[in-house]
Amino acid sequence: MSIERRADVTRTLARFVVESRFETIPAAVRHEAERSLINWLGCALGGSRHEAVSIALAALKPFSGPAQAGILGRRERTDIMHAALINGMSAHVLDFDDTHLRTLLHPSVPVASSLLALAEFRPFSGADFLHAFILGVEVECRIANAVYATHNVNWYITGTAGVFGAAAAIGRILGLDDRQMTQAFGIAGTQAAGLREMAGTMCKSFVHGRAAQNGMQSAFLAAQGFTSSERVIEAPRGFAHVLAVDCDLDTITANLGKTYEIALNTYKPHACGVVCHPAIDGCIELRARALKPEQIAGISLRVHPLALKLAGIKEPSGGLESKWSIYHSAAVAIVDGAAGERQYTDERVFDRRVGALRKRVSAEADDTLRQDEAHVAVTLNDGTVREQHVDHAIGSVDNPMSDLDLEEKFGELSIGVLADDQVRQLVEKCWTVARLPDVAALARLAVPC
Amino acid sequence: MSIERRADVTRTLARFVVESRFETIPAAVRHEAERSLINWLGCALGGSRHEAVSIALAALKPFSGPAQAGILGRRERTDIMHAALINGMSAHVLDFDDTHLRTLLHPSVPVASSLLALAEFRPFSGADFLHAFILGVEVECRIANAVYATHNVNWYITGTAGVFGAAAAIGRILGLDDRQMTQAFGIAGTQAAGLREMAGTMCKSFVHGRAAQNGMQSAFLAAQGFTSSERVIEAPRGFAHVLAVDCDLDTITANLGKTYEIALNTYKPHACGVVCHPAIDGCIELRARALKPEQIAGISLRVHPLALKLAGIKEPSGGLESKWSIYHSAAVAIVDGAAGERQYTDERVFDRRVGALRKRVSAEADDTLRQDEAHVAVTLNDGTVREQHVDHAIGSVDNPMSDLDLEEKFGELSIGVLADDQVRQLVEKCWTVARLPDVAALARLAVPC
Repeated sequence: MSIERRADVTRTLARFVVESRFETIPAAVRHEAERSLINWLGCALGGSRHEAVSIALAALKPFSGPAQAGILGRRERTDIMHAALINGMSAHVLDFDDTHLRTLLHPSVPVASSLLALAEFRPFSGADFLHAFILGVEVECRIANAVYATHNVNWYITGTAGVFGAAAAIGRILGLDDRQMTQAFGIAGTQAAGLREMAGTMCKSFVHGRAAQNGMQSAFLAAQGFTSSERVIEAPRGFAHVLAVDCDLDTITANLGKTYEIALNTYKPHACGVVCHPAIDGCIELRARALKPEQIAGISLRVHPLALKLAGIKEPSGGLESKWSIYHSAAVAIVDGAAGERQYTDERVFDRRVGALRKRVSAEADDTLRQDEAHVAVTLNDGTVREQHVDHAIGSVDNPMSDLDLEEKFGELSIGVLADDQVRQLVEKCWTVARLPDVAALARLAVPC
Repeated sequence: MSIERRADVTRTLARFVVESRFETIPAAVRHEAERSLINWLGCALGGSRHEAVSIALAALKPFSGPAQAGILGRRERTDIMHAALINGMSAHVLDFDDTHLRTLLHPSVPVASSLLALAEFRPFSGADFLHAFILGVEVECRIANAVYATHNVNWYITGTAGVFGAAAAIGRILGLDDRQMTQAFGIAGTQAAGLREMAGTMCKSFVHGRAAQNGMQSAFLAAQGFTSSERVIEAPRGFAHVLAVDCDLDTITANLGKTYEIALNTYKPHACGVVCHPAIDGCIELRARALKPEQIAGISLRVHPLALKLAGIKEPSGGLESKWSIYHSAAVAIVDGAAGERQYTDERVFDRRVGALRKRVSAEADDTLRQDEAHVAVTLNDGTVREQHVDHAIGSVDNPMSDLDLEEKFGELSIGVLADDQVRQLVEKCWTVARLPDVAALARLAVPC
């Protein structure tokens, strides 16, 4: 691949963001953005009381600026940059947010977290929000498409590519011109960070929130004339070549404005790494057929190889880490018949019954399976084998969560955070966001009365 | 190299920072730290009015927190995190700050910028400052030693390794224990960033300042119990293996507490990339022998290969980029007899005489030369050749700037920023910093009356 031929990837992407018109975006794409919004907001509310969020807020509050924006699900207010960070952390900390399956990027965290933080400071309409949201997701996912194959093993792609998404969305609202948008991408890209070594620690949600915060700052800096390279994505010492062994720059600009990556967004019914989901569905199915943990001699999973690579932790050390254990996931699915946030707590990790069953789970990689496919075989104490094949996990592109499923997930996540009436209003406003004259109404409703 | 054998690099380094005693640090090392301090502070004052600094401050001020710390050389005050960022930018933006020659890391920017910002918020003594400064430099330089060979081509090592230095120094002042310090390194390391593609743009000083800010935040987060991996440096998906093709983890802990990297620090007499310095010295020498630009048919430089790799820009687009042009550096050294901040401005880049001579400069890499060595041959219009060989550039370890040189450099950089009396007092306080009961006195003196 000639580097020269791709000389204009960054500029082309910037021009697209600046020139896009909302009217040209298909209705189905807009609706998918509304689905992404409701899912993101629910996750942020559900994660808002997490210890990682509380600690970050306590540590950084003394240095934060004027009370410009609300912290979702909480009473604190901070400057918009810290709000983007904290809300981004809340939205990701449960590992329950959306997934762009091809790249495993979590599209909404950087983009929606920065946009809604901005809304209370510099008012704009719901239609502008939805448009900028779609564009931000487009930018980050297209950049992710170019690098993910050799990038993801080392980096959290939402931390690295996500920063471009936030810069694009905020840059669009700030009205950056072509050149400023290109510079914003440069300022954002040089801050791309997030080592996968942080799995199972508070740093994971932290780098996701940072993408929102740093991307937003990049747009504000560019608006004031701060300079950067105008070739941050494609240059030999730029993002794609440095953070990936191999990259496909063509994919970034192919069919730009014709296809939309947010149309491929997926939502999790389970509160853990998406690679665990097909196996969980299989276990829950089997349990529904009157299977009890005590009857089980062993559980054998056959899964896509990535499931073991990313979620191969045999004995998780605590709640956060258990989200990346396919063994724990199968065990709680059988014991509890669920894999929600309550299944990935320290309490469930150290539960005697769950622990005993987890030890009896084995898993093998099968590269003939798709990522959303799994086979579960349970051997009973009497030698009987019960099997369940999952073709497409719930929440995958081919078996999506319905709008109603998403509302129910939102309701579950909001329990104990907001009043029922607030929840109802928020759900309504998410589905009709494009008609809101001031999108900050969402932020104001999403804090405890 | 077995990864297992190095399992404890991060913890070992953390324990060293926590347990170090000031009394055990040799007097010569402490004095080098004082020399580093005066050079850093002068650079920060000299850079404090730079456009990059003013724009960053204007863009971020609306979101910054309480007036906890002064911005060096300016009247604004911000929260300590933004002060660390902005002061770090000021200290680096002229490319005039110190250099750890082996790695090309600029040691003082992340460490001193974060420490002095903290001092006004949480008072501590000059001795504690000097100690934490030495430890922060130790940590970042040792990590840099392990990776620089295959790291520097892609990354600004002060942006990447520097974040550990700031975390170590601030963590020491905050009194973190072993475990918290290890976590602070993890939080810092997962934010390591700074692409070399940003050469010649405002993003270069920005990522240097970010190292100070992000490292400082990491220490505050760790103090509150925020968690990270405890093996950020050495883990397979950690800093060293991900950000370098090859690394030498042994070097990080070898002779820890016996040798000090700050003892190897160097200071620039010229305001540009250190790799240009030997050639500049040669040109200034030749000029002193009554050489005029108009007499010159051509200038041939023989330099260490790294000089062309890092400063090979033939025609710089402006002042910032000209600091990375060995051609421009040679030209101004002949025309002006100097290579100070005034030689790296847009005005000098577009000057007719400088431009004409710059076109007549050629350079070749010679791998038999050391980094601090160069050969300059000037061919006159009449065919005469005059030559100058530079064994050790001024400011290198073997030909260091004297304490008086550093005072003079400080004075030059402070002109128009501080009153003469402030300059005198600051110089005095830098040399006696270890006796200051409250090191914030430095920060308070370093702003315009």
